[in-house]
Amino acid sequence: MGIEVKIADEFWTPRIEKICREIIPYQYEVLNDTVPGIEHSHAIENFRIAAGDSDGKYQGMLFQDSDVAKWIEAAAWSLRLYPDREIEKKIDDLIDLMERAQREDGYLDTYYICTGLEKRFTNFSHGHELYCAGHLTEAAVAYALATGKEKMLHLMERYVGYLIEQIGPEEEKMHVFSGHPEIELALYKLYQYTNDIKYYDFMVYLITERGKQPSFLLREKNFGERYKDKWFDLRYHQAHTPVWEQTNAVGHCVRAMYLYSAMADIAKETNNHGMRETLQYLWDDVVTRKMYITGAIGSEAHGECFGTDYDLPNDRAYAETCASIGLIFWARRMLQLEKNSSYADVMELALYNGAISGISEEGKQYFYVNPLELRPEEAEERYDMQHVRVQREAWMGCACCPPNIARLMASLDQYISMWDDKDKKLYINLFIGGEILFDDGKAGLVIQSSYLKDGKVRLRYKGRRRKFSLCIRIPGWADSCTLSVNGKQIEEPGAEKGYVYLEREFQEQDYIDVKFSLRLRKVYANPRVSADAGKAALMRGPVVYCLEEADNGKNLSGISIGELTGVDEFIDNSLPGNAIAVSFDGCREQESMWDGRLYSYTRAPREGVRIKAIPYYLWGNRGTGEMKIWINEYLV
Amino acid sequence: MGIEVKIADEFWTPRIEKICREIIPYQYEVLNDTVPGIEHSHAIENFRIAAGDSDGKYQGMLFQDSDVAKWIEAAAWSLRLYPDREIEKKIDDLIDLMERAQREDGYLDTYYICTGLEKRFTNFSHGHELYCAGHLTEAAVAYALATGKEKMLHLMERYVGYLIEQIGPEEEKMHVFSGHPEIELALYKLYQYTNDIKYYDFMVYLITERGKQPSFLLREKNFGERYKDKWFDLRYHQAHTPVWEQTNAVGHCVRAMYLYSAMADIAKETNNHGMRETLQYLWDDVVTRKMYITGAIGSEAHGECFGTDYDLPNDRAYAETCASIGLIFWARRMLQLEKNSSYADVMELALYNGAISGISEEGKQYFYVNPLELRPEEAEERYDMQHVRVQREAWMGCACCPPNIARLMASLDQYISMWDDKDKKLYINLFIGGEILFDDGKAGLVIQSSYLKDGKVRLRYKGRRRKFSLCIRIPGWADSCTLSVNGKQIEEPGAEKGYVYLEREFQEQDYIDVKFSLRLRKVYANPRVSADAGKAALMRGPVVYCLEEADNGKNLSGISIGELTGVDEFIDNSLPGNAIAVSFDGCREQESMWDGRLYSYTRAPREGVRIKAIPYYLWGNRGTGEMKIWINEYLV
Repeated sequence: MGIEVKIADEFWTPRIEKICREIIPYQYEVLNDTVPGIEHSHAIENFRIAAGDSDGKYQGMLFQDSDVAKWIEAAAWSLRLYPDREIEKKIDDLIDLMERAQREDGYLDTYYICTGLEKRFTNFSHGHELYCAGHLTEAAVAYALATGKEKMLHLMERYVGYLIEQIGPEEEKMHVFSGHPEIELALYKLYQYTNDIKYYDFMVYLITERGKQPSFLLREKNFGERYKDKWFDLRYHQAHTPVWEQTNAVGHCVRAMYLYSAMADIAKETNNHGMRETLQYLWDDVVTRKMYITGAIGSEAHGECFGTDYDLPNDRAYAETCASIGLIFWARRMLQLEKNSSYADVMELALYNGAISGISEEGKQYFYVNPLELRPEEAEERYDMQHVRVQREAWMGCACCPPNIARLMASLDQYISMWDDKDKKLYINLFIGGEILFDDGKAGLVIQSSYLKDGKVRLRYKGRRRKFSLCIRIPGWADSCTLSVNGKQIEEPGAEKGYVYLEREFQEQDYIDVKFSLRLRKVYANPRVSADAGKAALMRGPVVYCLEEADNGKNLSGISIGELTGVDEFIDNSLPGNAIAVSFDGCREQESMWDGRLYSYTRAPREGVRIKAIPYYLWGNRGTGEMKIWINEYLV
Repeated sequence: MGIEVKIADEFWTPRIEKICREIIPYQYEVLNDTVPGIEHSHAIENFRIAAGDSDGKYQGMLFQDSDVAKWIEAAAWSLRLYPDREIEKKIDDLIDLMERAQREDGYLDTYYICTGLEKRFTNFSHGHELYCAGHLTEAAVAYALATGKEKMLHLMERYVGYLIEQIGPEEEKMHVFSGHPEIELALYKLYQYTNDIKYYDFMVYLITERGKQPSFLLREKNFGERYKDKWFDLRYHQAHTPVWEQTNAVGHCVRAMYLYSAMADIAKETNNHGMRETLQYLWDDVVTRKMYITGAIGSEAHGECFGTDYDLPNDRAYAETCASIGLIFWARRMLQLEKNSSYADVMELALYNGAISGISEEGKQYFYVNPLELRPEEAEERYDMQHVRVQREAWMGCACCPPNIARLMASLDQYISMWDDKDKKLYINLFIGGEILFDDGKAGLVIQSSYLKDGKVRLRYKGRRRKFSLCIRIPGWADSCTLSVNGKQIEEPGAEKGYVYLEREFQEQDYIDVKFSLRLRKVYANPRVSADAGKAALMRGPVVYCLEEADNGKNLSGISIGELTGVDEFIDNSLPGNAIAVSFDGCREQESMWDGRLYSYTRAPREGVRIKAIPYYLWGNRGTGEMKIWINEYLV
């Protein structure tokens, strides 16, 4: 028995509907170069050129194909929710175009087809061939799942079949892997869909080959010359040591997330204890030493990579939207390996903060980089912050993030719940309103959630009597919760690894009420995070709050807080989506005392002021200005 | 009547003696490529190649000549203090070598002589021709002043004469200036020595030409292509607007300091009010918005330049040693324009902190960049901190700083005092022990100073009766001071712009005692300096203190201080030079509470600990480790 999840949630439904009905069609137009004023993507045009339908030269990043692939995947998931003949026709046309672009041998990468096939398989470190193949495969599986149409899947099976002929353990084949992991997790999806073991074997080969020493990457032309460059460092590719011996998260964050996700797929498939242990080391390294409070990762622009332990600068964070999305992918897979709320905590944190901060509320503007603090003048002037944008952009030359967030949001239903058929356990991981359906919709749980507003969730059973365990996640942020079944409170509902297990025979109209204590709280960072020492952040449930210049004036550094007093939580109509803003008592240094001086032996007197904070994911929706998550605590 | 200053000071004399007796001879060997294990400078060899004495190819930066020039200048100043026939012979040999290298037309730049004279005068933005000419001229004047030997001066007069033939306001000449100012202030010295007005006129021409729009620099080949690059921005060269209309300090810091110094020379010469006003704007901009507490400037490595207002990051500061030295040059000239203690405050601050931190106590290791905070792992790993060294280096490929600090220290006597012959006023600017002599040494003031230890200075008059004003600077850091003449305290000695004026007829054995209240104090930064918000620095008189891992263990970010209590000031025998260290009560977050977590809703309890701080200029003399100037203040 499988489950199906339908979202009907006051926070998510409007967002998902906008993504599906408006943004996915809009992104197609962008990829098709028909939106005036937007940097031309050329991504679809490249397929036309490869197919011989169009003259002209390949343009864009050499992984431009992946934008089309991610868009198809997003659109596929979207079609399940909002059927749309026009979009489906566009996808089918794209698939026909791909068929024409595909070479006789099965090869399908427009960059190499258009610019010279002799270059294929010569640049695994940055060439992104297998990366694009992976995204196309993911799209093909998603489209088959969403519509039952398998034409794209067959194209991709041909392509992957060709790759398997070229690459593999046999002596005559190339012993290589992709610099940017992605095909590995895609192959797992293809294996799951087709049940064809050769895809799984190929995935395992690629992961095993990575990290074999001496790495074949060292022989690639770019590598030798610029070995000191982080972009060409084996650690950048997580290829510095055998994958199952890696215990520290290093290198390019998105690459790491996609690799670790695929490793988790293998660990699930094999149930190998050592593999799980490796993943646990990597997980702990990321979430206890290298993750921003927003669930963002990547503290350095150069190499888009992890920093050293506790190196988490706020203003020049890299914190790529795609890396938070990758962390969500990985967290879900870790949760599949072990039902432990801490994985869901991170998944939820990245979702409500680092991932959706990447898209404007209006939906058509995107952040690639998600800093945790912004002073626009510095960000615009400093060379070492040239990766930071002071406003979301309409599109990027490297447009990996926009379609990535679209496919995440269009498939968010896949992150809410997990069904363990063997033990008859239904896990609730995210508290998003809607329905979790069994038996082709004849039974299920109806979820009413005002989780983000007041921490309340009601789950109501519908359908014939059925015995199963309802396993409800207790979020790490909740310092208390009450749980009642049919109105009767459960005393000490004892959780195991952050899940409460309610085993019973459910019958129609049974309902469970959960209430997590949700309030604004100060959060502290480990003092080894020098950027945050002496400071506190504010969270309300899973949502990180930030100060903005729009509410608090310029110079947010002059603001400090003590104990949280006078807290007022209110629906702010000036914010998109009527989000909950908070205000509280704080202090501000009296700048007049400074009288233009730079240093003084006297600390400026502080005056009491009201401070207002808004959810971080909403920052930058009201013009350009300062923003700050970590607030100084004052000396009283 | 002029004055002569001889230093005999417990802090400075050992340093100057080491510079003169040991480091200057050592630096010659480095420049002559005879020190094993040190990166070859090739600077002297380039002159040999240019002279035809040696085959081989030019090596080093294209301004390598300036290293030799600065060394000659340093050695010249040194010869006054510590006559040394060997060094003098080396200088004379170098001058003979220069004579052979000099072209018939007077031109003397080994880079262009060795690599192709057709390239000369084609790259003013970065070619450094006039810059090197300036340093050679400064050296020639210094050597003439120190020894009376004028051969080098004549060589340079030939060279400058040639430059004047090529460059100037006349239509047939090139209308250009040097991207890197330096020749301007050198020309002023040449003018002062020779009294030949043509050198002054050329200096004024070069400064006036700078900033004329459209700038000729825009036509230089490198400029057009990379205009967005800060290195090729007109602001980088302070050439974006007419020099006398510049009110904001922008661009490359060392360039700015040398330019402003020359501008101050002109303002002194012309006594023009508008020029003074411009300089005042620039001064205020630097010292109230762009200067580190150490008297360092330059907040960004890219372009080695000023940041926007209040952008003063501590860990990735540029804070070039040469820029602090340049600030000292400029401050002295501002003091010549107006006797105002605030200029001397900055001169003293840069001297005791940002400048001498550039040289190891042992003298043979140098910092180019002087960060105000260091976590070695981050500095070594982060690409945006690749300019930071975790230890002073034996030499640098771009070795501007080592000879620059040598010439400053060998000429420090020139910064202590000023004599106003017209009004018979003797200004004491720096409280360094020694003698200030009139009448060829027959009269003067003997200065005994324990200024850095206890804030005490005694000035004793010697010689025949003489009426003059003794003008004693009251440092901005001294919140109180007592002043007595022949043991009798002066009540309310009323200072004017930070100077106390004691007008009297001085007679043999008259003595003035000054005592400034010297104690460890906390200093705060303007809250607009986000890097320092919520933090305090420690100063004791003009000396900035810092925490080091050697004294306080790892993770200095976990340390915080409240009110300064339990302060103990002591001579620390473990420090070079028996410097005064301090200890005081502080707190440290109990890391055990964190138990490996990254974030927590609970602030870790703090335990009381003793904190030790040492003078910043001594940091990094005891191995590699963390260092921190700005310390968190704790919330009680």
